[in-house]
Amino acid sequence: MPINWDTTSDGDAMGEELIELMRELYPLPRSLTGDGVRQTLAVLGRDLPLEIVEVPSGEVVFDWEVPREWTMRGGWIEGPDGTRVVDFADSTLHVLGYSTPVEATLSLDALREHVFTHPSDPELVPYRTSYWEERWGFCMSRSRLESLAPGDYHVVIDSTLADGSLTYGEMRIPGTSDAEFLLSTYVCHPALANDNLSGVVLLWALARALLQQELVYTYRLVWGPGTLGPLCWLARNRETLDRVQHGLAISCAGDPGPLRYKRSRRGDREVDRAATLVLRDRAGSLVSGWSPLGGDERQYCSPGFDLPVGTFSRTPHGLFPEYHSSADNLELVTAAALGDSFRAALEIVDVVETNGSYRNRSPYGEPRLGKRGLYQSVPDGTYPEAPLLWVLSLSDGSHDLLAIAERSGLPYRAIREAAATLQVHGLLERAP
Amino acid sequence: MPINWDTTSDGDAMGEELIELMRELYPLPRSLTGDGVRQTLAVLGRDLPLEIVEVPSGEVVFDWEVPREWTMRGGWIEGPDGTRVVDFADSTLHVLGYSTPVEATLSLDALREHVFTHPSDPELVPYRTSYWEERWGFCMSRSRLESLAPGDYHVVIDSTLADGSLTYGEMRIPGTSDAEFLLSTYVCHPALANDNLSGVVLLWALARALLQQELVYTYRLVWGPGTLGPLCWLARNRETLDRVQHGLAISCAGDPGPLRYKRSRRGDREVDRAATLVLRDRAGSLVSGWSPLGGDERQYCSPGFDLPVGTFSRTPHGLFPEYHSSADNLELVTAAALGDSFRAALEIVDVVETNGSYRNRSPYGEPRLGKRGLYQSVPDGTYPEAPLLWVLSLSDGSHDLLAIAERSGLPYRAIREAAATLQVHGLLERAP
Amino acid sequence: MPINWDTTSDGDAMGEELIELMRELYPLPRSLTGDGVRQTLAVLGRDLPLEIVEVPSGEVVFDWEVPREWTMRGGWIEGPDGTRVVDFADSTLHVLGYSTPVEATLSLDALREHVFTHPSDPELVPYRTSYWEERWGFCMSRSRLESLAPGDYHVVIDSTLADGSLTYGEMRIPGTSDAEFLLSTYVCHPALANDNLSGVVLLWALARALLQQELVYTYRLVWGPGTLGPLCWLARNRETLDRVQHGLAISCAGDPGPLRYKRSRRGDREVDRAATLVLRDRAGSLVSGWSPLGGDERQYCSPGFDLPVGTFSRTPHGLFPEYHSSADNLELVTAAALGDSFRAALEIVDVVETNGSYRNRSPYGEPRLGKRGLYQSVPDGTYPEAPLLWVLSLSDGSHDLLAIAERSGLPYRAIREAAATLQVHGLLERAP
Repeated sequence: MPINWDTTSDGDAMGEELIELMRELYPLPRSLTGDGVRQTLAVLGRDLPLEIVEVPSGEVVFDWEVPREWTMRGGWIEGPDGTRVVDFADSTLHVLGYSTPVEATLSLDALREHVFTHPSDPELVPYRTSYWEERWGFCMSRSRLESLAPGDYHVVIDSTLADGSLTYGEMRIPGTSDAEFLLSTYVCHPALANDNLSGVVLLWALARALLQQELVYTYRLVWGPGTLGPLCWLARNRETLDRVQHGLAISCAGDPGPLRYKRSRRGDREVDRAATLVLRDRAGSLVSGWSPLGGDERQYCSPGFDLPVGTFSRTPHGLFPEYHSSADNLELVTAAALGDSFRAALEIVDVVETNGSYRNRSPYGEPRLGKRGLYQSVPDGTYPEAPLLWVLSLSDGSHDLLAIAERSGLPYRAIREAAATLQVHGLLERAP
Repeated sequence: MPINWDTTSDGDAMGEELIELMRELYPLPRSLTGDGVRQTLAVLGRDLPLEIVEVPSGEVVFDWEVPREWTMRGGWIEGPDGTRVVDFADSTLHVLGYSTPVEATLSLDALREHVFTHPSDPELVPYRTSYWEERWGFCMSRSRLESLAPGDYHVVIDSTLADGSLTYGEMRIPGTSDAEFLLSTYVCHPALANDNLSGVVLLWALARALLQQELVYTYRLVWGPGTLGPLCWLARNRETLDRVQHGLAISCAGDPGPLRYKRSRRGDREVDRAATLVLRDRAGSLVSGWSPLGGDERQYCSPGFDLPVGTFSRTPHGLFPEYHSSADNLELVTAAALGDSFRAALEIVDVVETNGSYRNRSPYGEPRLGKRGLYQSVPDGTYPEAPLLWVLSLSDGSHDLLAIAERSGLPYRAIREAAATLQVHGLLERAP
Repeated sequence: MPINWDTTSDGDAMGEELIELMRELYPLPRSLTGDGVRQTLAVLGRDLPLEIVEVPSGEVVFDWEVPREWTMRGGWIEGPDGTRVVDFADSTLHVLGYSTPVEATLSLDALREHVFTHPSDPELVPYRTSYWEERWGFCMSRSRLESLAPGDYHVVIDSTLADGSLTYGEMRIPGTSDAEFLLSTYVCHPALANDNLSGVVLLWALARALLQQELVYTYRLVWGPGTLGPLCWLARNRETLDRVQHGLAISCAGDPGPLRYKRSRRGDREVDRAATLVLRDRAGSLVSGWSPLGGDERQYCSPGFDLPVGTFSRTPHGLFPEYHSSADNLELVTAAALGDSFRAALEIVDVVETNGSYRNRSPYGEPRLGKRGLYQSVPDGTYPEAPLLWVLSLSDGSHDLLAIAERSGLPYRAIREAAATLQVHGLLERAP
């Protein structure tokens, strides 16, 4: 069904609301597992009927295994003069993700072995993790590191790595059909705003909007840790994956850069065409072909599943200078960008919900639109009838509305509305 | 068969002749129906064996119905001082097409309700009609309208709307095959030169030239009122429409702008390829994809018929500033442009008449052209043999001559002549 | 098998060696037939197991016939003052190729009828032949011709046209498969360096390099006179031509212009894709579509044979100003260009030798590269894993490695090495 925009927040209002939500979520200590993810999902679940799924440590998921759960209580470095050099309480970036516990006193040289700095910018704290190799470490700016005086440093990481579970949240919004539209984003990054609190809150906004709509497709929404989250979801839904007819992996949706869509692995699925069309009419947008470098789409589009999942973002991972650093903070994202992402994603949903093939019921010559009140009786050289004429011309059962919008260069919505008008007047019928 | 250019007027001479003919046709009161069309066809029929078809008012034609016939005897506005403000006798544009009769005296304000002016240029008289809604009106320049003093205006439109018929002219030039090439243009516009007296006279020129040729295809030529003319022709020829293998809807062929070809609805028919190739070699020409906005092609290419009919023009409807106004007069068209349109259209005919697939009879290695006098014995680095080599290389039964011209970049005529030469030397045979 | 670059001369060293070889071959009196070709092949055969094939005069080869053999012992023009105007001993270009013998005294005007000059440059001696029409002639610069004083000129061409044979050299380097890769060049041009001593020596270099390799394909190398050489080879190998799965016609490979590849007649054969990919990653290279104008590819790609043979060159025939003149001398070619051609040709061989389709054995989700030591444990934003991920993503049995390199934009070698790595780790298997 068409999106009912009257029941939908406009982009600006939604953008402001999402910025507020990001502020609340920003300090929570998210990681691949642990309470930071649970707290994040709890916040989202205040407004949404989220189902929380716990996948136990040690469970084999395709080629992977769910790791032990990481519980992080605190961590800091205390300098020779007793002051704290860095503290997890100030920023969740300061401790290497999945650090093993440590309490020790080291020389500056020995400490350096455990400190990660940003590869290019001396003032930024990098975001680093070590999920699969046991170690401990701190992240700080290179200038801070270089300012440290020789002496004894006391380091504390009060963490636990123990059997527990990996947590993801999911939600199902039923439509009239069992066919599914999958929307997915990742929740494992700590204090990084564009990558990917922006995706987390955008999916929350889409969930709220979709709950207000009459829908054809059944929507499956997933907030999980990157890589393993989608893999766990795929494993638990393997029997019904053939229902997934469209999907978007959402991330990095809040920076002021242009919208970007990366095609699914096959590249010509309906969601690819829908997103390409929506972005065509938003100046400056970019559409790229499939690449196996990226986020959750790596799992959904792996050749065994090969799901029709595209990637929806603004400036994606690695392409903005603040990427994976303390500069990817709340100043990087804007309400306007979030609102624009929200509207564009809903427009893609609108296309997929309403696309279809029709048949012109009066195909011999152009039907007389004038007698139906669909034509200006005194032509003035403009063509308000253009969408009607395009739909009539190409509705031969082999062009769907998307194809008509593609070929005519007209906005999808004009084509969809023309088709609805022609149906009302008995000039168009759904193709079998 | 190839066009025999020796029996064909050259472009310049034909252009001058067409300008003369346009001068004669310009004042005739053409409309959707009525004697203006009959008089126009009578002039064309002086030199051509035209068949005149009358379709009675009330006849249902697909989704349409032939309207009452409009007979227009005169019309004017007389001002408070007794002078005529506008008079149909000065220009057929001054009365709204299909005006109902009226004789009345009105205030200037009341008169304004019935006056149409040009949307952008205050000095131009617009061309307006009201075929399907009964009303009366006049067209004049906005500056003239604004110069009128208050007072009583006497208006007269001496017209009749009564059962009669819609008139079109057609002509059949038989070829050796029943397969048909349809050429069509519209005759319903009154004193507008480029749109479309130019098309009317160009089709007349093509008819005269084709009558001199030996032809493979049977040519069907139609001069009818826009929209309903083609629909009537389609209705009367419905049983044999599968014979139509190529077609051109001709219009706006006399202005000095570049040639334009708009592809048929499917876009890849033989006439599309032929026209695209002919225009490729005429610098500045433009080829565009199908659009359902336009002229007679809207009917021929409607999805129920889907005939292979392209649109041949110079600057088309709506894209020249003089469009549908008193500025589309005889000064807008040139003999050179008409002559160029004439030659280009015949070149398209030449391609379609002679295109075909051949087989190289000496396909193992390059045949020795030199021993057949087809190769320079002392090569000098130029390649007069290029067309021969291209035809030999690609004549494998799956490339027609058009494809060879497309792929080689060589003019079609060079390819066609090379094929003829190779046939003479036994090196090429028609593919089965 | 991959080219083992360790056993292969680097481009620079090979380039220098090829320049030396060209110096030796330059003065030999090559033509369509005769001892100049035999001497040339003898030089090449010092280092290679060349097989020399003699095809007798009069043998019918498809549409052609092997002509009489031309033996050239000397020729000159002596002026009125007894000095030699031109002498074959100074340059093999001075006598029209295939000149009949003559000894005569002529006036300057009569002599002019037998003198060929360069069409544009007054200082260059052109290269001209008259294989198929009996005549005699000399080639000289126009300035030299114009400087001649009136008087009696004594001309001598001491040649024989008599039954003999046409000579070509060939070589077979067996691989593990009967499927063949054909490499061909022409040896009929006398003192012209780029066109085509460069091709002659490049093929010699490739032969030497291929002899050092373990190969899948069986390589067939042919050095023959233009046109008739390939035709004779095709006639003698007609029964096994279906073994030829890839081929390159090599010429003009020594000038400093960019590499050029001209596609085979069909345009989409594996060798076309391989060469296009190799040239894609060599800045400035040019790839063009098929044209039947050219060299030996005219025979291999004639429609009856339609072999998958592309054309490999730097600046090809006719496109460099020195073409077919005394300016196409040893100063035109460079060791760097020859070395680059050598490396690029071997890279094409490397692609074809190693290309194939694979299947991801862990296709459900991305396999965990980290546990196999294939992933950085602390990601830093660069993607050394990109080739691995691309191969995993597209190895579904329907993309060969070439397609993965094409679609990823990554160099073929990175893709090939990634595939090998993944096979070692059990993540990839050859598609059936």
